[in-house]
Amino acid sequence: MSRSSVKSGEMARLTQFVDNEVFRAFATYAAIVLVKMMLMAVTTSYFRLTRKAFDNLEDTVSFGTGESAKKLVRGHPDVDRVRRCHLNDLENIVPFFGIGLLYALSGPELSSALLHFRIFTVCRIIHTFAYLIPLPQPSRGLSWAIGYVVTFSMLYNLMKSVLYL
Amino acid sequence: MSRSSVKSGEMARLTQFVDNEVFRAFATYAAIVLVKMMLMAVTTSYFRLTRKAFDNLEDTVSFGTGESAKKLVRGHPDVDRVRRCHLNDLENIVPFFGIGLLYALSGPELSSALLHFRIFTVCRIIHTFAYLIPLPQPSRGLSWAIGYVVTFSMLYNLMKSVLYL
Amino acid sequence: MSRSSVKSGEMARLTQFVDNEVFRAFATYAAIVLVKMMLMAVTTSYFRLTRKAFDNLEDTVSFGTGESAKKLVRGHPDVDRVRRCHLNDLENIVPFFGIGLLYALSGPELSSALLHFRIFTVCRIIHTFAYLIPLPQPSRGLSWAIGYVVTFSMLYNLMKSVLYL
Repeated sequence: MSRSSVKSGEMARLTQFVDNEVFRAFATYAAIVLVKMMLMAVTTSYFRLTRKAFDNLEDTVSFGTGESAKKLVRGHPDVDRVRRCHLNDLENIVPFFGIGLLYALSGPELSSALLHFRIFTVCRIIHTFAYLIPLPQPSRGLSWAIGYVVTFSMLYNLMKSVLYL
Repeated sequence: MSRSSVKSGEMARLTQFVDNEVFRAFATYAAIVLVKMMLMAVTTSYFRLTRKAFDNLEDTVSFGTGESAKKLVRGHPDVDRVRRCHLNDLENIVPFFGIGLLYALSGPELSSALLHFRIFTVCRIIHTFAYLIPLPQPSRGLSWAIGYVVTFSMLYNLMKSVLYL
Repeated sequence: MSRSSVKSGEMARLTQFVDNEVFRAFATYAAIVLVKMMLMAVTTSYFRLTRKAFDNLEDTVSFGTGESAKKLVRGHPDVDRVRRCHLNDLENIVPFFGIGLLYALSGPELSSALLHFRIFTVCRIIHTFAYLIPLPQPSRGLSWAIGYVVTFSMLYNLMKSVLYL
């Protein structure tokens, strides 16, 4: 079996990744944008609690009972705004993670990879502030678009290395 | 070229992963939570069909035509609840998958990795039942929060191994 | 330390992946479906601009001010349809990417892997046209279901190789 070709001493750890600078860079920046996305969940909770606007009746229990609780199952513009920002993160960070991971594994130059990861990360952080404050356009549109182009640039470099239809 | 450094006999299979216990554990638990998330789609379909509440006019064709069909393009609290549960899965399982994969590749101890993967998986299953039945709070909130903390714990361990800004 | 076991000459590139045909095939098809998903964002923008229907007041600035701008913060059936299609992509392409990547790393046969990746990709492209035109059912339902089954088939093959609870 092909498995027997791996020496037992190498089975304990996959060390090649922590020794690879491009992988480490990708892991670091991917973690930053994923954490940024996760923080949208607590931001949503904060707005739900301060604006008293919930999606589920069972969530209103500490704010009242009966009819007064039912009234708190409602929308609020601030909550909706954070939710849209969170969903926009999902729509953009999922492709960044997928294409970025494959790109990192395809052996790019470290300097080029770092440039892609750093620009994308900065753009998504600016995008979040632009969405939540909100800043006047085109700050949000531009930060979204640059991150979008960066993802396509990684894709182009990935396809140069691996295209296999 | 660097490619020539790989012997042709090794090109057929990437065997290092199926021989690594941490990778196998991650693949197993990631698969469980991804399947759990996919099952929300059929749960949504079930509620749409039994509650007769659809988003698209073309989906109502087997339930009537004309005005009676148009009336079925509507929301329903049960459908909305499953949809929120599905979206919450996306928001939490995507970071778990991304951070968990990078963590698994960074060479953690098997026992520690298993603990993270198992707690997260159990929490997301409890979260689903807590959302859909629904169970009184804080069952849903707590199962969400523990999974959230587990993801941050993997992130902390990942950053100890790979941080590269 | 285990790190010293990696020779310095191997640290620069992770070459094993670009030399592996299954990985290259996965990277190619995963990139196609992720790009397809990203294109939903510009499709949404197109419908928002042509239908003049926005989610944020700051986005309406080039279409007017005051009350006339506020009226453009509204929904539109065409925008909602693209948004649902985009969200359906997220719900299905995320599991495909996660399970497909782990499956590709578990050393499947190239011919079998290609079959899975190609059917899924074709189904998601058909699904998009079926959703946006829209085509009569069951075109959308069927293209969704086949992609769903393909993902489960990859999962089954993955679990045969790596199951570790």
